[in-house]
Amino acid sequence: MAAPVIALLTDFGLRDTYVGELKGAILTANPAATLIDITHDVPPQDVHAGAFLLGAAVPAFPPGTVLVAVVDPGVGGDRRPILVETPHATLVGPDNGLFTRIIWPDAVGTPPTPTLTTLPPTVRAWHLTNPAYRRQHVSNTFHGRDVFAPAAAHYAAGVPAMAMGNPATTLWRLPVPLPKLEAGAITGEVAYIDHYGNLVTNIPATILPTIAAVELANHRIENLSAHYDTTRPLVAIVGSHDTLEIAKPGGNAAKELGVTQGETVRVTAIHSP
Amino acid sequence: MAAPVIALLTDFGLRDTYVGELKGAILTANPAATLIDITHDVPPQDVHAGAFLLGAAVPAFPPGTVLVAVVDPGVGGDRRPILVETPHATLVGPDNGLFTRIIWPDAVGTPPTPTLTTLPPTVRAWHLTNPAYRRQHVSNTFHGRDVFAPAAAHYAAGVPAMAMGNPATTLWRLPVPLPKLEAGAITGEVAYIDHYGNLVTNIPATILPTIAAVELANHRIENLSAHYDTTRPLVAIVGSHDTLEIAKPGGNAAKELGVTQGETVRVTAIHSP
Amino acid sequence: MAAPVIALLTDFGLRDTYVGELKGAILTANPAATLIDITHDVPPQDVHAGAFLLGAAVPAFPPGTVLVAVVDPGVGGDRRPILVETPHATLVGPDNGLFTRIIWPDAVGTPPTPTLTTLPPTVRAWHLTNPAYRRQHVSNTFHGRDVFAPAAAHYAAGVPAMAMGNPATTLWRLPVPLPKLEAGAITGEVAYIDHYGNLVTNIPATILPTIAAVELANHRIENLSAHYDTTRPLVAIVGSHDTLEIAKPGGNAAKELGVTQGETVRVTAIHSP
Repeated sequence: MAAPVIALLTDFGLRDTYVGELKGAILTANPAATLIDITHDVPPQDVHAGAFLLGAAVPAFPPGTVLVAVVDPGVGGDRRPILVETPHATLVGPDNGLFTRIIWPDAVGTPPTPTLTTLPPTVRAWHLTNPAYRRQHVSNTFHGRDVFAPAAAHYAAGVPAMAMGNPATTLWRLPVPLPKLEAGAITGEVAYIDHYGNLVTNIPATILPTIAAVELANHRIENLSAHYDTTRPLVAIVGSHDTLEIAKPGGNAAKELGVTQGETVRVTAIHSP
Repeated sequence: MAAPVIALLTDFGLRDTYVGELKGAILTANPAATLIDITHDVPPQDVHAGAFLLGAAVPAFPPGTVLVAVVDPGVGGDRRPILVETPHATLVGPDNGLFTRIIWPDAVGTPPTPTLTTLPPTVRAWHLTNPAYRRQHVSNTFHGRDVFAPAAAHYAAGVPAMAMGNPATTLWRLPVPLPKLEAGAITGEVAYIDHYGNLVTNIPATILPTIAAVELANHRIENLSAHYDTTRPLVAIVGSHDTLEIAKPGGNAAKELGVTQGETVRVTAIHSP
Repeated sequence: MAAPVIALLTDFGLRDTYVGELKGAILTANPAATLIDITHDVPPQDVHAGAFLLGAAVPAFPPGTVLVAVVDPGVGGDRRPILVETPHATLVGPDNGLFTRIIWPDAVGTPPTPTLTTLPPTVRAWHLTNPAYRRQHVSNTFHGRDVFAPAAAHYAAGVPAMAMGNPATTLWRLPVPLPKLEAGAITGEVAYIDHYGNLVTNIPATILPTIAAVELANHRIENLSAHYDTTRPLVAIVGSHDTLEIAKPGGNAAKELGVTQGETVRVTAIHSP
């Protein structure tokens, strides 16, 4: 049987040595680990962005993946290091809401502000308190290397979560912006702009009306496209995470439209003049 | 026997989660795969640049490497997903010319425009049509994750190409700019500028005259150097892919000379005043 | 037993194919190698920065790690390719001082300028001269792929260092800037600015006075903090490599203070008005 995959998402960037050190710490504890990078370019200290990206990426990984995620402005303070077993993946990182979209994949009940929230019945969590599964010397500033990496490595090697600390019944949950449904229209927002300049919205394909026009930033796009149709200046399309996207085929929609994250997107079911 | 290497080249960038998702999809289908990144920073949707970089990189990989390459502006349209067995490597990606320099390593016969071209006798290709070797739900926008990754993963695990789809006898071939030979001179161009600012030309070392002077952008460099000789302001040198390069030792030739890709480079066999 | 880790640090950047080619060359010689990136974003040709980053990263890797490091402005000239066995790791790269902080981890005896220096008794080195452990065709410009990668790969596969070349008894050592101790004060400098904008100094925690105030760039920070305390505009903290750091909690200290590498940092043991 292959070793479980340990997948990594951080805001460390690739310029410094931090990602390498985190990996070195994992391999020190578990030389057989298979390490995969999701991304290390989460905007520095932006826990909301990290949570969004985790929600996008994790479903593509095999069941049983161990996920180490570190966007951790509160490192060294009183936020708690955690390990969380969910039906699809095991999560290791800070208890600051970063795992919101994995632990609560359904946005129903999303809180208005960050809130300590009871776990769903299929999820179990532990505080990582046992020093035997930390680096010998734990720094104040780099728990990715000193706390999360060793815990994930030992867990992937078979150490049970209950050996690593005490059970937790509540964890921090972040608010997730939801689209608003009205008669004949949905109002959502640009949730993420990718490096192609594609505008990823928070409007799931499952609630899109059959025939839609999309309006944002004084532009109007009629109908959904099934691909990046280069005969059209802009397309509305169901993107790779099954949400509505706006793209400029062969170009960069964000630059073209001057749109930034948070921009309002309105979908109407019937054309109006 | 070690698992075959799966090498990856895309224009996904490293900021988003797309590379991670592609890798997750490979490991879902084949947990023992060895994944290596070539680069993910091909300029977005620039198939010609991707083809150039593949031609540079692939010879350094072990025979039998499975190469997943995705620069795919036509994703979701009518361009076809393909798997191509060549003498050195197996290629998986879109049929848009991206593999031109691997399938036709010799530029003889390069077409003036992208052309559907008969394969060389040592190359075999298949259209990836069998849904059994795709992700269960195939998106419109991310065939890297949903089509190419699973196909490469299953192929590396031993599934024969013929099980994945129908044979193809012609594939798209892109034009490759060739240097022009005249009496006593060669005129080529800057084919690529690397991150050091070195100017990589399309003039192969094999056709360089014994004694050469190199002219570009109103600069003249006499003789070939055997290394980055810091006593010279600029050097002409045979680069790591056995083509002529112009470099500024300890500096950035592209910035220094204000040169961009496509700049004309002229090599003369005899000094002229 | 797991294969030894081969860890990589270069100034190649991630935009070109050079890192991929280096890895391809390693896997060609040793398909079972486990490859880990430390960073490839060392400022181009900045051997001092590379040496600093190696010193930071290597302690996090497992004993026996094989480290390939390439910041090599003298490639193709008369600088020598080396393999160096140290108590913690085996080093492969150019003999230009890049490994200074691993070979001589104690800065005592640091030279005023780069100096050919006798090795410590626990370190052994070889010049990589045996063509059997190089790529068949060695380029003038890319010894990472053609010399260092194959040597590291064969070494990790069990080839003894003595088979690869001749012993070396002296290697180039770079100067390392040391803090100055005076009565009641320490004067150091900003040795590195990370991507968060944290200012990493060259002042080790071991010599910090119990109660310290820190002055730089006309700012004064009282006391050490134990974490990134968001109630303070700036904190002085012991960073992840056990040196003094200055950080702006939730922000970017380098931008905020307009500080660049080399800026003087002064630590005083007693408050003075």
